[in-house]
Amino acid sequence: MHRYKSQRTQASFGLHGHQVVSMRDSLQAYMTLDQSAPGDAYGSGAIINDFEQEIALELGKQLANFFPSGTMAQQVALRIACDNRDIATVAYHPLCHLQIHEQQGLKHLHRIDSVLLGEPNRLFSLQDLQNVEAVAAVLFELPQREIGGQLPTWDELQKMCDWCRQRGIHSHLDGARLFEILPYYKKTAAQVCALFDSVYISFYKGFGGVSGAILAGDRGFMDSAKLWKRRQGGDIFQLYPYIVSAQYNYRLRRDKMPVYWKNALSLAEQFNQIPGISTVPKKPVSNMFHVYFTVDSQLLEASLIEVLEKYDLALLPASRCDRDNRKYFEFWVGDQFSAVDPEIVAQAMCFLAAALKRGAAI
Amino acid sequence: MHRYKSQRTQASFGLHGHQVVSMRDSLQAYMTLDQSAPGDAYGSGAIINDFEQEIALELGKQLANFFPSGTMAQQVALRIACDNRDIATVAYHPLCHLQIHEQQGLKHLHRIDSVLLGEPNRLFSLQDLQNVEAVAAVLFELPQREIGGQLPTWDELQKMCDWCRQRGIHSHLDGARLFEILPYYKKTAAQVCALFDSVYISFYKGFGGVSGAILAGDRGFMDSAKLWKRRQGGDIFQLYPYIVSAQYNYRLRRDKMPVYWKNALSLAEQFNQIPGISTVPKKPVSNMFHVYFTVDSQLLEASLIEVLEKYDLALLPASRCDRDNRKYFEFWVGDQFSAVDPEIVAQAMCFLAAALKRGAAI
Repeated sequence: MHRYKSQRTQASFGLHGHQVVSMRDSLQAYMTLDQSAPGDAYGSGAIINDFEQEIALELGKQLANFFPSGTMAQQVALRIACDNRDIATVAYHPLCHLQIHEQQGLKHLHRIDSVLLGEPNRLFSLQDLQNVEAVAAVLFELPQREIGGQLPTWDELQKMCDWCRQRGIHSHLDGARLFEILPYYKKTAAQVCALFDSVYISFYKGFGGVSGAILAGDRGFMDSAKLWKRRQGGDIFQLYPYIVSAQYNYRLRRDKMPVYWKNALSLAEQFNQIPGISTVPKKPVSNMFHVYFTVDSQLLEASLIEVLEKYDLALLPASRCDRDNRKYFEFWVGDQFSAVDPEIVAQAMCFLAAALKRGAAI
Repeated sequence: MHRYKSQRTQASFGLHGHQVVSMRDSLQAYMTLDQSAPGDAYGSGAIINDFEQEIALELGKQLANFFPSGTMAQQVALRIACDNRDIATVAYHPLCHLQIHEQQGLKHLHRIDSVLLGEPNRLFSLQDLQNVEAVAAVLFELPQREIGGQLPTWDELQKMCDWCRQRGIHSHLDGARLFEILPYYKKTAAQVCALFDSVYISFYKGFGGVSGAILAGDRGFMDSAKLWKRRQGGDIFQLYPYIVSAQYNYRLRRDKMPVYWKNALSLAEQFNQIPGISTVPKKPVSNMFHVYFTVDSQLLEASLIEVLEKYDLALLPASRCDRDNRKYFEFWVGDQFSAVDPEIVAQAMCFLAAALKRGAAI
């Protein structure tokens, strides 16, 4: 898939994600500011405090704190939960961010062990939780990104959070893509967050900001979070470049999430109509899904390149490998999709199906 | 000093630091970029890698890595030194940044203990080092900020670094203000850094960038540093807002450091001529010094406000308290000083001296 990976970036149109922005494009956000508006300084100043308040209100939490990264925000959340309970173990999904993308920072920095809930290729359930003993916290990732962005039913989610609450176990939400799932659950952010003791949200992902994260929770918890943010090197002199971008893009895209989801449903349906291609989940529950294939990898690559050349359109992002070494595509819908004529998408999909059929017959 | 603190920000002129910039002023740096230049992504991309190479070369180290904060960069450096030696103790000055500004992150996150070298109110010496047993690393802060930016002699510094090297002790340089001391030592950055196994430099402080830091060292050390940067939550999706600013301001101000120092010498001399006011050190060895006073605090405040009103000039920044609860001013010279007519400065200093004398006589 190396040829497709490099050629796809040359296409004028794509379906995946947002338009790629240059560094200078990010200046749009600054243009919305007052000419003389000052930056933040070590967590103080209107630019940071106003935004933290705006998000705390939206999430229905007492306080929110802007972090440079989700990695840091979540480690801090789990550390506080562990310290408060004097238990150095937490439970989470086998493919959550902390387990596979952070070089085991939680263990090496905070000396917190983890219990893996359920199996890698599915969501964990109330039953999986019930097998767990003596953990300080359970981390829920909604949607579960590494399995295509799947979600438990609202009923199951409530039961799992209730189970935690009854046992004094801290429930933390990895809500990096929280706003992306609200249309499916038909809930407000505050309604989802009410199930959890703490929540982290991200401002790149669906919002398309430069970087940055918010951690929110009650006052006592967030007082500790500020302390740990400083300890971990996240109380940066000025965070405003991330906040300016986060605020701008949050306001720009928050209400587009239902459209992203609708487009993801439509696109997944079209992929699933092509023999040898299928999506996980079959019906997306957010703007994201994974695309798997049983057709020959080289044939698929050649066919995607044919589509590129004929329609100037990249149907898929670059491929990646899952834990079983199977190639797949992680797809999420953002603004790019809407810039392409749906008729062209339909034609390109038909063309792809025909190219795969033709190739398979040889 | 509350009245002075709030009124000084209204003055058209000041002597301390750089001009205060608004968030939108920081866009100047972006205007030097190509219109379509892409950002970084998790440590990759020209914007980050080219700058890291530029700084590695300048510091004479094999590799450099951009960190969101110095707090993180230095904790990581000391952690690697400790892990490599299987010793969880480091030595540093009683008033270094790790000891007083990081909520004991090194201890709480990395479980590294510290030995405090010498006394808070002076530099540590070779003799202080010689009393130390079994440490993995010694952190040198040049200049020692909390005592007015003092420096050991070059000869003493060499001897201390030699002492470390002979014992296999990692020598780390807190070079947050490294470029500010080069004129005094009459050395290049690489000549100073050659004494140390690793070095951190900051891009705000004298350079006046938004935020951000570089950690540099040899290849093996820096490979570990990248791993720890990820673990600690510093491998941020995009660091470019800090890097664009760092690069712009580094190039803008690197060669101004001799002028800042010269101006600091001149200004300190003028302060020291006023009875009841003195600087630490008496003759600055960088662009920084502390201003102490034996005159009555309220009289000094009233006199500074008189200067404000007469000359539209803030002679000093806001005051702070040292460890012994003595009020002082931390002064550093940046671009602001050069914008004020030296004749006006001299007049204002005379006026201050006269106001203090008049007040003391009442």
